[in-house]
Amino acid sequence: MPTKGIQLDANGKLLHFLSIEGLNQQILTEILDTAESFTSVTDRTIKKVPILRGKTVANLFFEASTRTRSTFELAAQRLSADILSLDMSTSATAKGETMLDTIRNLEAMQIDMFIIRHQDSGSAHFFAQHVRPGVSVLNAGDGQHEHPTQAMLDMYTIRHYKQDFTNLRVAIVGDIMHSRVARSQIHALNLLNTAEIRVIAPSTLLPVDTESLGVQVYDNLEQGLLDIDVVIMLRLQKERMRGALLPSEKEYFNLFGLTQERLRRAKPDAIVMHPGPANRGVEIESSVMDGNQSVILQQVSFGISVRMAVMSMIVGQSGLQAKA
Amino acid sequence: MPTKGIQLDANGKLLHFLSIEGLNQQILTEILDTAESFTSVTDRTIKKVPILRGKTVANLFFEASTRTRSTFELAAQRLSADILSLDMSTSATAKGETMLDTIRNLEAMQIDMFIIRHQDSGSAHFFAQHVRPGVSVLNAGDGQHEHPTQAMLDMYTIRHYKQDFTNLRVAIVGDIMHSRVARSQIHALNLLNTAEIRVIAPSTLLPVDTESLGVQVYDNLEQGLLDIDVVIMLRLQKERMRGALLPSEKEYFNLFGLTQERLRRAKPDAIVMHPGPANRGVEIESSVMDGNQSVILQQVSFGISVRMAVMSMIVGQSGLQAKA
Amino acid sequence: MPTKGIQLDANGKLLHFLSIEGLNQQILTEILDTAESFTSVTDRTIKKVPILRGKTVANLFFEASTRTRSTFELAAQRLSADILSLDMSTSATAKGETMLDTIRNLEAMQIDMFIIRHQDSGSAHFFAQHVRPGVSVLNAGDGQHEHPTQAMLDMYTIRHYKQDFTNLRVAIVGDIMHSRVARSQIHALNLLNTAEIRVIAPSTLLPVDTESLGVQVYDNLEQGLLDIDVVIMLRLQKERMRGALLPSEKEYFNLFGLTQERLRRAKPDAIVMHPGPANRGVEIESSVMDGNQSVILQQVSFGISVRMAVMSMIVGQSGLQAKA
Repeated sequence: MPTKGIQLDANGKLLHFLSIEGLNQQILTEILDTAESFTSVTDRTIKKVPILRGKTVANLFFEASTRTRSTFELAAQRLSADILSLDMSTSATAKGETMLDTIRNLEAMQIDMFIIRHQDSGSAHFFAQHVRPGVSVLNAGDGQHEHPTQAMLDMYTIRHYKQDFTNLRVAIVGDIMHSRVARSQIHALNLLNTAEIRVIAPSTLLPVDTESLGVQVYDNLEQGLLDIDVVIMLRLQKERMRGALLPSEKEYFNLFGLTQERLRRAKPDAIVMHPGPANRGVEIESSVMDGNQSVILQQVSFGISVRMAVMSMIVGQSGLQAKA
Repeated sequence: MPTKGIQLDANGKLLHFLSIEGLNQQILTEILDTAESFTSVTDRTIKKVPILRGKTVANLFFEASTRTRSTFELAAQRLSADILSLDMSTSATAKGETMLDTIRNLEAMQIDMFIIRHQDSGSAHFFAQHVRPGVSVLNAGDGQHEHPTQAMLDMYTIRHYKQDFTNLRVAIVGDIMHSRVARSQIHALNLLNTAEIRVIAPSTLLPVDTESLGVQVYDNLEQGLLDIDVVIMLRLQKERMRGALLPSEKEYFNLFGLTQERLRRAKPDAIVMHPGPANRGVEIESSVMDGNQSVILQQVSFGISVRMAVMSMIVGQSGLQAKA
Repeated sequence: MPTKGIQLDANGKLLHFLSIEGLNQQILTEILDTAESFTSVTDRTIKKVPILRGKTVANLFFEASTRTRSTFELAAQRLSADILSLDMSTSATAKGETMLDTIRNLEAMQIDMFIIRHQDSGSAHFFAQHVRPGVSVLNAGDGQHEHPTQAMLDMYTIRHYKQDFTNLRVAIVGDIMHSRVARSQIHALNLLNTAEIRVIAPSTLLPVDTESLGVQVYDNLEQGLLDIDVVIMLRLQKERMRGALLPSEKEYFNLFGLTQERLRRAKPDAIVMHPGPANRGVEIESSVMDGNQSVILQQVSFGISVRMAVMSMIVGQSGLQAKA
């Protein structure tokens, strides 16, 4: 996938936000800093800034996702954008129009920014390659490829609680192979110079090239959690059970479920994260999810600030104006 | 259901709006007075006031209802709120997330007010008990429990046409047993010191404890309508016919349908109300519905002002600013 | 259908926009001129004017159409209206309420303008006849009757590229019989004094009274295209194939598909239009659709300006304010 070049212009300014792969440390840090300035906005009584006033943001969700769609919509509202939500299941694309015709038509409606979620890996890039200059594309999850805003809200959460990445050990636990979230997180953690990245998974849920991504691989949760600062649990897609990849939910929990007991192997101040929605009792014990090391709900809040940051950087206005 | 205490703070200010039960005459009157100040807003050319500017109102409709959702949405728009509509049938709750996790996640999105309609009695209270301070819940109908904004728009309509409740005879006709609307109306009429409240229904559609609610019970429509000032017809849920509770639609109309002839038993200036949508020829004759005693469409209009009133009182701003 | 009188008031001002039939040249020209003033608005960085601020526009789509709904919604947003989108498939009408009750109820919500698309011919007129003074109805397509905003955006496109209608030859190609778009286009082209209007179709897809509409009929595409200035292709509804009206898609393309070779029979500077979504390889060859005579995407852009023009003329404010 030709990711490089398309996301940043010659001066390093963000044009699209499609994948963490192809970005650099500087732009990731700028996103986190800008998001920080928006966190104060979302805490205010009047949670609005005029950065996207008169701009139109279109939600193109080919795959349903109430949570992700809602946080993007809230971010756009708080930047004062007009929002168009398109139900792509009943649209012209569903009537047999090609994706390229759909893009051309939406673009002709003078939409400024597209938020796209699609079941096919690479679809956000395809969109971005075909829109005209000045129109931007944000990837809200494409197949098993990337989910870059989720990764950035995770980075924001880690930085919020742990400040510096260069002395952190971070573990990602679960279905690495099918997870666009994990793929984006690994790229982001690497770009931010994380000291050690571990992936912990059954061997059937590891991509073949995992170690080439710059991570340590563990197939034993107890061992993988030792001295860890940050534990990121992935959602287990229950449909994987139907294939040959996984035993029962109960057996999965026995081997890879995060329990309070297992969490004690991590550092005492380790934080626990999850992109949601979580399967209690499958990948994570309820008491861990609700425990005082869990920052899962804070992730959701930070997600709005991070999406505001990416959108405002794309239209060329930093979050500094948010303070005015 | 522990309704008391949760809706009002120590100073009697409205925090949530979940049920008429648990409120008092003073707050009901304040809602009606505030709604009156908003009626002028909705008649203006520019129907907007900035009371909820920068606030986010989320519609959580687990049960479909175009009309109720629309009037809440219009009320929120006219108060300048940002609105998030969540399709709860495709949401994480549908994916197996618990209701409590759904609440926690929505709350983490910094939503200020939830409008919830749910098929389970008590669900709005459950929500309100679990959101953090500063977040409010409005019940748009929960199971067979209450539908308090409907009752308040009915009270507004009665006061608009009849001024004083203390000398009024009000009849509620139809399926009392399954009606959250009737339950809310009875509580409200009692709190406002209505002289006489009658419920008129087939005995199969009366709850066992009806008389303990402070009402007179009639199983004969002609007798029940005698000298009545206000007739409130309930919608007949046709699915009741499938059970053993009711005979055919035709027989129901013969016994409990409101005809012009029967309406003559009420006072000459009696008004006819219905929460809609009405089944013409089942619970009400077309000529009555369209006749000059019917105030059914006025109820819809008043419904927007009443919902604006409740929302603005909850955020702590009275409708007096609406006049500015 | 009694169209005359209902759309214009005594002074010729636009009250509703239901059909091109019943309008006059002056009002059509005013729409095109007003739309021109809005084209600059949609090209601005901040694409908003306050013409509909505080007004509520309701979308009533009984028939799904992502594209048409979106362009109406964008037009309303850019005029600063509040927008209510009603899913009519789950509404009270679906529960058995009559259309008239639905109208009365929506009207009671103090909605200022209805955009209605419905599978029944005449439904927009029915709506307009029954709303109270001051409430407006815009037809977004009713059965096989009319689709007047589509026709006006087509007229806008033609005028944009060809200036004067009085010396133009325009061909409409395809399923004339079932096309509300074609019907509206023919009325509009006639009112604007187009020199020659041709319809080109298989005889099974021609209404019996076609020639009475003031058009030349051709059943041969090559002959019909000779010396043409504007070619308007219609979308082929594939469900027509199931009936006896049409042979296969391939055979249709062989006889009536617009190819580059056939297009050479038209004038060298002829433009090619299509209301979308197009079936590539059925009614139009891909290379024609993407070729430099195609103005299909420009039609989409102009559609927003035209809809803004109609809405603003109805509320009584011309596009001149848009320039302020």
